[in-house]
Amino acid sequence: MTNPPATQHSYPYQNQPIWSKSEKVIARTAFDAALGRELHEVIQEAKRMASQIQQSSDLWDLEHYLTQRRKEIDRKYDYRYSRLTHVFARLLYEKRLREEELHGLREDKLTPIRSFAKFLAEDAA
Amino acid sequence: MTNPPATQHSYPYQNQPIWSKSEKVIARTAFDAALGRELHEVIQEAKRMASQIQQSSDLWDLEHYLTQRRKEIDRKYDYRYSRLTHVFARLLYEKRLREEELHGLREDKLTPIRSFAKFLAEDAA
Repeated sequence: MTNPPATQHSYPYQNQPIWSKSEKVIARTAFDAALGRELHEVIQEAKRMASQIQQSSDLWDLEHYLTQRRKEIDRKYDYRYSRLTHVFARLLYEKRLREEELHGLREDKLTPIRSFAKFLAEDAA
Repeated sequence: MTNPPATQHSYPYQNQPIWSKSEKVIARTAFDAALGRELHEVIQEAKRMASQIQQSSDLWDLEHYLTQRRKEIDRKYDYRYSRLTHVFARLLYEKRLREEELHGLREDKLTPIRSFAKFLAEDAA
């Protein structure tokens, strides 16, 4: 007898889609790619800011920028299956992810992802 | 009738030396010079660290370094006359200030400054 794995499936939410094994691979790949691009962007900006530091206020501006970006990235890249449709929606809306990168996910994920991305776009307009 | 200026002299501490006008000029010059040198050092190190960032952990190492140095500098450079002998003692001990830069201060400041610098050196040994 084995215990069931302690995943999000142990406590299903209402309407919570189940992610298949192949979908999890697609999700992880897309997630990591977007995160990698965003980190690359922050690295480039930090190098640019550092190269232009002339006085102490520039130094603390760089610190503030890094702290803000770290907190934002920590909040945004939340790899829980219960959060993933919202995460991908935001990444699509921010153009940090192309919809092709989610190719292979089933409609029960793609529909809420597109729908929330559309909501974010309309909300910002 | 005028009110007395609201300086630290309004509430004298026991054994608190009085800083003359010319001593205040010397103190401010020495303080600013040490702070400027320390900030310059942090700027150079931040530029060096930024230029070598390759991955996200290097980025957050830079953030952490800047946060630590900012807090340390905020704590260390406390320009209250009630704190200044301790501040200069620490700066002497850390070789961020040369004793010549305090030339012109009276012995009631130099004696406790030297004495606390010596204490710090012995404490670290």
